[in-house]
Amino acid sequence: MKISYLGPEGSYSHIAAKNIFSQKDEFIPASTITNALHDLSSGLVHKALVPVENSSSGGVAETIEAFQSIEDIYINNEYILPIKHALLVPPSCDDLSSINEVRAHHMALNQCMDFIRSNLANAEILPSSSNSSAAKALAAKVANDPNIKSAVIASDLCAEIYNLKLAKSEINDSNMNETRFWICSKEPADLNTQAKNKTTVIFQTKDEPGSLQTVLRLFAVNNINLSRIESRPAKKGIGEYLFLIDFDLHRDQNSYEELLRQAKQHFTYFKWLGSYSLIN
Amino acid sequence: MKISYLGPEGSYSHIAAKNIFSQKDEFIPASTITNALHDLSSGLVHKALVPVENSSSGGVAETIEAFQSIEDIYINNEYILPIKHALLVPPSCDDLSSINEVRAHHMALNQCMDFIRSNLANAEILPSSSNSSAAKALAAKVANDPNIKSAVIASDLCAEIYNLKLAKSEINDSNMNETRFWICSKEPADLNTQAKNKTTVIFQTKDEPGSLQTVLRLFAVNNINLSRIESRPAKKGIGEYLFLIDFDLHRDQNSYEELLRQAKQHFTYFKWLGSYSLIN
Repeated sequence: MKISYLGPEGSYSHIAAKNIFSQKDEFIPASTITNALHDLSSGLVHKALVPVENSSSGGVAETIEAFQSIEDIYINNEYILPIKHALLVPPSCDDLSSINEVRAHHMALNQCMDFIRSNLANAEILPSSSNSSAAKALAAKVANDPNIKSAVIASDLCAEIYNLKLAKSEINDSNMNETRFWICSKEPADLNTQAKNKTTVIFQTKDEPGSLQTVLRLFAVNNINLSRIESRPAKKGIGEYLFLIDFDLHRDQNSYEELLRQAKQHFTYFKWLGSYSLIN
Repeated sequence: MKISYLGPEGSYSHIAAKNIFSQKDEFIPASTITNALHDLSSGLVHKALVPVENSSSGGVAETIEAFQSIEDIYINNEYILPIKHALLVPPSCDDLSSINEVRAHHMALNQCMDFIRSNLANAEILPSSSNSSAAKALAAKVANDPNIKSAVIASDLCAEIYNLKLAKSEINDSNMNETRFWICSKEPADLNTQAKNKTTVIFQTKDEPGSLQTVLRLFAVNNINLSRIESRPAKKGIGEYLFLIDFDLHRDQNSYEELLRQAKQHFTYFKWLGSYSLIN
């Protein structure tokens, strides 16, 4: 089986894919979340694995936007990975105070700011498009200049893949840092009778006072738990929003159809992203 | 009057400050949103102006997080600025196809991706900590090498401030791109009887099914319009959220106290960020 994920190699998406799938499967890094899902949609891969939210930084906008525009892809499962950032340096480096720049994705930089302030006082803080791309780029620079005074924040796995030195593990300011991923395919998932099932939908409500409250109340009176609600800009100016909700009901369960029929009366836009269960 | 804003000079926060305040006022750039609000809290400035949401990219997490941790600062007004990104190049550059890198904040890069793909096919896309810092850095590089093949995406104002060439104005993919700002001081704002008043609060609900729906329903049955609801991670793992809501009622208006008394019964955390009106 071929699985696309947000790369480059060593990304947290890569770690999640290695945890979930078999060593015999083929893992194919994509340069963006959108590309990982396009590879699925176009049939290049059987599954795609993409991040959807982080417990410190919140929702991943690109994933939601890609799901709005790409057709015939469905969430099949969710997976939650504890995130442990590490500080990686050139193999020759043994003095953190000499480091003059540290690169990582802006979310990782944010999540390690206390560590950076305490341990890398002389380093310029520079955002990268991803942690693993920063690690890959540092490895290329080390090949030219083994004494370069740069560091990156990335996964332990990146130290192994890119031959960098693991200067310090678990440098996150909060040790409660998790990322939730979606595993997607071109087929909707069946009801999993052995697990809790959940559904994710995106909608925009009619521009009437209280229409969002009316929709949410439908879930409450039917005793359907909403596990998440996220607003996203509708890109039509300040004040217009789309909502993404997760609720504890599978599309194949009895009450789904009637509940959604009532809710849809208040929508101007609706998309079902999938009904799915958690992989432990 | 001294006003802190998210700098460096030429930022959209700077443009908003120039539109709102008098030329006689002193504008003081801060390196981060958190620092702009700290400068207010510590009495270095009289007002602070910070971005809170963009109509394409959504909420500004740092602003909400700073408001949670900094005491005795209050939203006094909101202001909405149309965002017009421009492509700035070295003064000597007159061929966009020669540009080999383009830098800007990741939100601005995102908002101009169609333009970049069509016009800067040979450019590497590199994130910066802000658009105006990218412009400032490019100006410094041009001083060393006038023929450098770099571009930045920033405001028109940055071209003026940093002596860069305005290669193209209004390069956003969507022409409906606005940023909403908060103007804050150390004193709560009085009810503005000439305008619509609104309140922003942050809360976390008790961990009971339907508690968010119950709270939102209180606003609906009291005919209080919710103009915005945003969820933020509570930083305690996947599944725990804070909510930020804007609703059309000032703290000094009659129904506020009773409504909030009822709502607070469902909260484990609550913070009032201010009651305020729009500056046109």
